[in-house]
Amino acid sequence: MNRQDEEDIKRVAHLAADAARLETLKSFRKTNLQTEDKGEGHFDPVTVADREAEQAIRAILAAERPDDGIIGEEFGTSEGSSGLTWVLDPIDGTRGYISGTPTWGTLISVGNNEGPIFGLIDQPYIGERFFGGTGGAGMKGPHGATDLKVSTQTTLSDALLMSTFPEIGSDDERRAFLAVEREVKLTRYGMDCYGYALLASGTVDLVIEAGLAAYDIHAGVAVIEAAGGIVTTWDGKPAHNGGRILAAATPDLHAAALGLLQAALDD
Amino acid sequence: MNRQDEEDIKRVAHLAADAARLETLKSFRKTNLQTEDKGEGHFDPVTVADREAEQAIRAILAAERPDDGIIGEEFGTSEGSSGLTWVLDPIDGTRGYISGTPTWGTLISVGNNEGPIFGLIDQPYIGERFFGGTGGAGMKGPHGATDLKVSTQTTLSDALLMSTFPEIGSDDERRAFLAVEREVKLTRYGMDCYGYALLASGTVDLVIEAGLAAYDIHAGVAVIEAAGGIVTTWDGKPAHNGGRILAAATPDLHAAALGLLQAALDD
Repeated sequence: MNRQDEEDIKRVAHLAADAARLETLKSFRKTNLQTEDKGEGHFDPVTVADREAEQAIRAILAAERPDDGIIGEEFGTSEGSSGLTWVLDPIDGTRGYISGTPTWGTLISVGNNEGPIFGLIDQPYIGERFFGGTGGAGMKGPHGATDLKVSTQTTLSDALLMSTFPEIGSDDERRAFLAVEREVKLTRYGMDCYGYALLASGTVDLVIEAGLAAYDIHAGVAVIEAAGGIVTTWDGKPAHNGGRILAAATPDLHAAALGLLQAALDD
Repeated sequence: MNRQDEEDIKRVAHLAADAARLETLKSFRKTNLQTEDKGEGHFDPVTVADREAEQAIRAILAAERPDDGIIGEEFGTSEGSSGLTWVLDPIDGTRGYISGTPTWGTLISVGNNEGPIFGLIDQPYIGERFFGGTGGAGMKGPHGATDLKVSTQTTLSDALLMSTFPEIGSDDERRAFLAVEREVKLTRYGMDCYGYALLASGTVDLVIEAGLAAYDIHAGVAVIEAAGGIVTTWDGKPAHNGGRILAAATPDLHAAALGLLQAALDD
């Protein structure tokens, strides 16, 4: 991909995130917000904001990048011919969104078969955007703009760990998570994609989750890798297609957590 | 308290919150932030920002309200002669603060022996302030200002519940919490004082916590009650001195949750 193509996908990603902001903010913290449950046996809400935000992003992509493919949480997969695919989660953390928390995000990224090339995590209420790929990682927020760089933490017992749900996933997955959790300094929950933004920002050192789809993690991989971090599955394989995810600031921390996860799963 | 006194305590509370903002934002998300552990057997961090923010608030109070008492998390209790006491938590959610999450807050409130008269919950990074007492509740944030009003939710099975730590408190307290948690629609963790702001905003319906100090909850009581909600201990007693806390949007929801908590504790 040449420099001009890179600049174009970044331009379009930011344009699409701007369009999605208008839609997600329309319904955020509004008392008349209707939610529908698309879960099977558990509450998995979707709102009109999820759908309208994804449609706003798709409208930009149709106009600006008509040959690229799309994988979106709400409207599925459209094939493209360019070899590039956009991966969209209009509201990552819909449970947080309906609760009024300011830590859900819009995830927009683009990649090829090898993985993400550029991605962003946008928090519209705060007015914060974290982005990375094609040679750099940065953020713009209410107090200005800055580069993103992961922490230099290498020691598990000094590390800050994040995950969204205390229950994590299956019983086996929770047992493996707890094998790491009991070794770290501090664990915090409830941040959805914002946890990946904080890992890229250098304020947390590890994020561990299970059961993710490609659209939950593709943008996070782009941002974290561009900020110097490492994201793999719990098998140490590429993470951009989802699954069980381990994101770490440094190779040492990644290796230590991966060892504990794998030992617990093998038990 | 006459109208002029009320206006004066509100003026001073906002002034103190403005002064604390400067201190908390200085160190937020800075990679050289040092933390000290004041916990006994668990990680209970305190930073220079906690101390400097409380000192900034105390400097305002010394100048503007020299006859009032103060209870502060970092510098303890100073007696006053006016019958009014300020209750201060410069950073509620220091664990969240050092993790870079935007859901910690500065808590400033003032009351007498009967409880809070006015309080505020300030989130400096987002630039959001929730306040209530002396006849009204409101918020100012990045997208404007609005009145605060709790939700009209009366049904436990449709309710959104928040708590900061999945472990809650003692084993008995956790068992009682889970008796409510399994009946609600959705539970979210990790928001510290921001959960009280969301209850007052009407986007969550219940907050349940244990082991709180007066400075963790005094401001929350002021804001939630002014927004129409109910805050008590798990015994149904006044909450502003801390302890085990149950905050609810409506009397029906409060009664339902209180019944489950008490039944579980009695088991």
